Amino acid sequence: MKREIYDEDHEAFRASVKEFVDRSVLPHTDQHIADKALPREFWLEAGKQGLLGLEIPEQYGGAEAGDYRFNAVLQEELAKVGAAYPTCHGIHADITAPYIVELGTDEQKERWLPGVASGEILLAIGMTEPSGGSDLAALKTTAVRDGDEWVINDSKTFITNGYSCDLVVTAVRTDPEKGPKGITLFGIEATKEGFSRGRKLDKVGMEESDTAELFFENVRVTDAEIIGELNMGFIHMMQKLPQERLACSIANVAHAKQILLETIQYAKERHAFGAPIGTFQHIKFLLADLVTRIEVAEAYIDKCVLAHSKGELTAVDAAKAKWYSSDVQGEVLEHCVQIHGGYGFMNEYRVARAWRDARVTKIWAGSNEIMKELIGRDLGL
Amino acid sequence: MKREIYDEDHEAFRASVKEFVDRSVLPHTDQHIADKALPREFWLEAGKQGLLGLEIPEQYGGAEAGDYRFNAVLQEELAKVGAAYPTCHGIHADITAPYIVELGTDEQKERWLPGVASGEILLAIGMTEPSGGSDLAALKTTAVRDGDEWVINDSKTFITNGYSCDLVVTAVRTDPEKGPKGITLFGIEATKEGFSRGRKLDKVGMEESDTAELFFENVRVTDAEIIGELNMGFIHMMQKLPQERLACSIANVAHAKQILLETIQYAKERHAFGAPIGTFQHIKFLLADLVTRIEVAEAYIDKCVLAHSKGELTAVDAAKAKWYSSDVQGEVLEHCVQIHGGYGFMNEYRVARAWRDARVTKIWAGSNEIMKELIGRDLGL
Amino acid sequence: MKREIYDEDHEAFRASVKEFVDRSVLPHTDQHIADKALPREFWLEAGKQGLLGLEIPEQYGGAEAGDYRFNAVLQEELAKVGAAYPTCHGIHADITAPYIVELGTDEQKERWLPGVASGEILLAIGMTEPSGGSDLAALKTTAVRDGDEWVINDSKTFITNGYSCDLVVTAVRTDPEKGPKGITLFGIEATKEGFSRGRKLDKVGMEESDTAELFFENVRVTDAEIIGELNMGFIHMMQKLPQERLACSIANVAHAKQILLETIQYAKERHAFGAPIGTFQHIKFLLADLVTRIEVAEAYIDKCVLAHSKGELTAVDAAKAKWYSSDVQGEVLEHCVQIHGGYGFMNEYRVARAWRDARVTKIWAGSNEIMKELIGRDLGL
Amino acid sequence: MKREIYDEDHEAFRASVKEFVDRSVLPHTDQHIADKALPREFWLEAGKQGLLGLEIPEQYGGAEAGDYRFNAVLQEELAKVGAAYPTCHGIHADITAPYIVELGTDEQKERWLPGVASGEILLAIGMTEPSGGSDLAALKTTAVRDGDEWVINDSKTFITNGYSCDLVVTAVRTDPEKGPKGITLFGIEATKEGFSRGRKLDKVGMEESDTAELFFENVRVTDAEIIGELNMGFIHMMQKLPQERLACSIANVAHAKQILLETIQYAKERHAFGAPIGTFQHIKFLLADLVTRIEVAEAYIDKCVLAHSKGELTAVDAAKAKWYSSDVQGEVLEHCVQIHGGYGFMNEYRVARAWRDARVTKIWAGSNEIMKELIGRDLGL
Repeated sequence: MKREIYDEDHEAFRASVKEFVDRSVLPHTDQHIADKALPREFWLEAGKQGLLGLEIPEQYGGAEAGDYRFNAVLQEELAKVGAAYPTCHGIHADITAPYIVELGTDEQKERWLPGVASGEILLAIGMTEPSGGSDLAALKTTAVRDGDEWVINDSKTFITNGYSCDLVVTAVRTDPEKGPKGITLFGIEATKEGFSRGRKLDKVGMEESDTAELFFENVRVTDAEIIGELNMGFIHMMQKLPQERLACSIANVAHAKQILLETIQYAKERHAFGAPIGTFQHIKFLLADLVTRIEVAEAYIDKCVLAHSKGELTAVDAAKAKWYSSDVQGEVLEHCVQIHGGYGFMNEYRVARAWRDARVTKIWAGSNEIMKELIGRDLGL
Repeated sequence: MKREIYDEDHEAFRASVKEFVDRSVLPHTDQHIADKALPREFWLEAGKQGLLGLEIPEQYGGAEAGDYRFNAVLQEELAKVGAAYPTCHGIHADITAPYIVELGTDEQKERWLPGVASGEILLAIGMTEPSGGSDLAALKTTAVRDGDEWVINDSKTFITNGYSCDLVVTAVRTDPEKGPKGITLFGIEATKEGFSRGRKLDKVGMEESDTAELFFENVRVTDAEIIGELNMGFIHMMQKLPQERLACSIANVAHAKQILLETIQYAKERHAFGAPIGTFQHIKFLLADLVTRIEVAEAYIDKCVLAHSKGELTAVDAAKAKWYSSDVQGEVLEHCVQIHGGYGFMNEYRVARAWRDARVTKIWAGSNEIMKELIGRDLGL
Repeated sequence: MKREIYDEDHEAFRASVKEFVDRSVLPHTDQHIADKALPREFWLEAGKQGLLGLEIPEQYGGAEAGDYRFNAVLQEELAKVGAAYPTCHGIHADITAPYIVELGTDEQKERWLPGVASGEILLAIGMTEPSGGSDLAALKTTAVRDGDEWVINDSKTFITNGYSCDLVVTAVRTDPEKGPKGITLFGIEATKEGFSRGRKLDKVGMEESDTAELFFENVRVTDAEIIGELNMGFIHMMQKLPQERLACSIANVAHAKQILLETIQYAKERHAFGAPIGTFQHIKFLLADLVTRIEVAEAYIDKCVLAHSKGELTAVDAAKAKWYSSDVQGEVLEHCVQIHGGYGFMNEYRVARAWRDARVTKIWAGSNEIMKELIGRDLGL
Repeated sequence: MKREIYDEDHEAFRASVKEFVDRSVLPHTDQHIADKALPREFWLEAGKQGLLGLEIPEQYGGAEAGDYRFNAVLQEELAKVGAAYPTCHGIHADITAPYIVELGTDEQKERWLPGVASGEILLAIGMTEPSGGSDLAALKTTAVRDGDEWVINDSKTFITNGYSCDLVVTAVRTDPEKGPKGITLFGIEATKEGFSRGRKLDKVGMEESDTAELFFENVRVTDAEIIGELNMGFIHMMQKLPQERLACSIANVAHAKQILLETIQYAKERHAFGAPIGTFQHIKFLLADLVTRIEVAEAYIDKCVLAHSKGELTAVDAAKAKWYSSDVQGEVLEHCVQIHGGYGFMNEYRVARAWRDARVTKIWAGSNEIMKELIGRDLGL
């Protein structure tokens, strides 16, 4: 069935994203994997093409698209290249930038947004801590008031873009007694004294993305670096999480769909026992099954995208989209590997890397268990 | 998320269907189960309310809605009562009636459609045979030419409405040499000499539906009873199967969703170990999972309904809808039974009957294996 | 692979059980289903063949086999006939009788055991209550001291053999304050004033077994009817539950295996699309998968049987056997139905009834959720 | 339950294997991963400890254990360290060595077996080809007769130990017309002119194992290098495959069990939301489920080991063990990763590497699909 949510403006935008991908991404993917990072050129080039500022007002160099479907198109096209691309891009442009756009002061916007839109200021978001996982309310990084300043200590981990970012929107405990109501967001520039990063984490997949631990040792900031309101950080994050989870969901499905299509092609070309392996009933039925699952998941995610483009997507529906899409992604890729036989275990095959990459999507952005907790609560349970 | 495919006309129609259900169906469900059949009053009452003629032109007493979403609303509301209701209704009004409307001669339409719309002529469709299952091309019921007449012999099985129907659109082999190209559809009235029926079949579920074997022993018909073209029956059926499969899909999801909502309610009310069982994390996560699955499936089926209401639903997408919806239905109900504990095994509980009812939806209307064969072929495998 | 746990004595006993089955059970199965009960003749005949007294000392008319493998053989052979047979038999001979044998006074043994062995006294065990499900510690049926007597009130439900039993070993709260430590077992004869039974419950399956609610309205008993020690009923039950769960497990696997073998035969004989359906790769792989699962489960259950015959089976391992075997049983039968197509939904086919029967095995004898709770606790969680 | 198949001799041997592991393996695992290979010292040390010659007669320096349970103990203990260890060891000692022992000439035995037992001659087996996957009968590497010699051309891929082996037992087509009856095994020494190897393959997991392509360019051998009989290679392989598949199965279960035990420990120690995560019901039930699955699989594999130690294990039962054990392994590790949250995606965590390693076990040694084909055939389908 035709997808109904995109009109010709979106498709025109898709064409321009594809151009960017063909010219500036595809020729360099091996290098990205070897570097375990995207180079600054990636960001600058994306900025030049207007692909970093969909959320940013025009006055600060953005496109201010005001229609989430453009973001969705971008996620999809990047996901077709590899799962790490929409992730790194999304953390910068889709997930972190909106904090500054929606909660930032004019001064903050002027200071940071033009660089965000151009790719000169790379963003990361610092939520997860070594001891805390998905339990955001328990975070331990603290800011202690010292005169006009706040002194920040402790660390964050699993930070996407962490190794190369220039600015980290960081969740910090400003009131030790108040649990979730004692958390504040700070915009911390990577040039700050006392800020440092660990090595690039050695991950199971998503190698193109630089992920790192961040350390804060007496990092000094002022109220001017607070993003949003003091002690309102938890609520600010809760409001932004649906868009993060939706972005993940879009990428999950587009990524798995792309690999599935490549696998169907492989099953037509690869012969065994005298016939294309895709003609064996077991594989034929399996591919029929997986194609259905992907299209069903896509229908749901499309519905979420449409709702979000109207500002109507709830946190609970985003949670449904997130766990479900990552589940389908994992299931599809598991079988795609199997259909490739021994080659599915070789890293030079896209399917092998895709399978490794996808393992994290059930874990990050709030684990799937957390998603079910949220949904269960919404059912009144 | 709000479902987007229905507007206020559909919702007004839904309200009138609900009224019919409340007044004419719900008070009699126990009787229907005990009788293993819906009584004629059910059909006459539905006819009076205009619920049998959505597919029938106004000149023959129908509503000629021309928008499949009304059919979908009807399937949904009946499915909430029990899985057999949309089935029996659908076979009559959604699946068999269109053969006469779209392929029938004017004479046939005048003779049969007013009764179909009023409930006086109950329809069934005779495809499946004892030896053939989902393999329609292999059918053995034959019509042999004898002068101006055709003499029909052999039998059909698993015929919904079979025990009480007045007219059976029957697939018959008219050319023994031509495989699928030697099949013709006949409208065979139950009053014909040589036509008889077996007992009501003793089924695992769907007890309200009378299902029977039909026997043809030298039943004589003429060309005037041919529906559509001679030897084109297989193609006629192929063209109508998507609507049948979509109708099933709508009912599958609406049925499972209703029982799931009732189960969530049960999980809030039933206490064990000192708390409502729905608050135990295992059940909470499970219900969160199932609610997501149902909503995802619903999004896909809604998309299919919309496409079909525009005449754009392909046979392959209908096949996807059919297998997938029956799969989700089975999975949801399996867990709903478990959540009910011992009561889930007691027939007086709706969930127990629902679980039994739903088992057939993976088998009928083309087994799910046949659906995957169709989808696989469409992939070029 | 050969099963290693049975020697020729067990196989000789198996032959005699088969003889009993062929002569006294198989000719009457339709009647049992129609009656929703096993007739007294079944019990008397089984008694005559020495099949009721494996747990009963010779002095009371039993065989005192002292080797649980004989019980296992009996469960297996009865399960091949239908899932209700090992259940009804097991409740009587394997599950309830041992309470009297191991905990009963000499007077109780003399009064009851000869009739238990002969089939004249049919046993049931009264644990589950309408409000309690698997939560035994919460039970509400009470015995209040009145002079030398106890006055028992309230009810039990889902009682296998409940409609026709002569003696019910019943768990009753004798101390309202002490939770699990305030429960006592009483042997309550069905002739007692104030004891009554509800109708045979209308179940999803297991129709041959009469299951009923039991009501106690000022039923008067004395200390002479206490089985085991006062207020020790919960502990007594905990000690006996492993044998009950193992008996279920043996039957679960033997039942599913039998239907699977019949389904393989069916898949060889049933033709579609010009070939036996079992030769289609999808069904071939599926049957290969299911055969493996059954043999794997059987290996585990055999290991449990051997351990139990040495008195070494722990409650935790019995819990593992119970949930796992019922899970495999359900999965195998689900697919066996599908392979039968429309016939799998017809009650005259064994596979259809087997599928319905098996649904309860995940629920009874402690639901599978309770089993996982027990196992989890044993892991120190 | 106690495992019953091992006696104190086996346990004494297990202790000595553990000693070897502690002293000679564990201190070097990081190096093995970095090198993507096991060093020669590993083999020499294992040889010195008598761990390479269980299958080799004493006269050639082996232990000639004659009881497969010793091999099983070795597989288990190595699997606990990491999945690649039993693989590399098994290919050498368990899978390839027996070809020489059972089919080799006296001359071949004298030439090769002492080095095999000491670790100076490392073995590999050359079956799989780039175009063939699991379809052994289709192999294309050819030996053409030229005077007294055979001239071998073409290549093999996915060869475990391929990069460092000294001798490859290689399946070669000696008669192009005879399909499986035209295949011969040759022992090809790595020093042969025309023999070369590709780079170490970059695999998804099993990094400690060096896997490589092997190339044969006019490699000249004589009849003296034929292992077994001319044109009997396919049958020779079929006879040895059960032991290969059983070895894999033992390692699959032992590997998954070890990681599961470590995960249970982790779930006790890791806190979130104020409690050890293992106490949350979802994880508690999940771990209970997985522990059961592992113990059930282990019971089946143990039964296979016992049967094989008596020479009674059939190829079909080995196929069941292989697919089933790899399936359980995959399922267990999938959940173990999830329980570790973000750390499960970090390569420094054993669970992350285990998950990657295990992906290949459903593919190699005959894919699980091939296993089901074999089992299905055995059912007469």
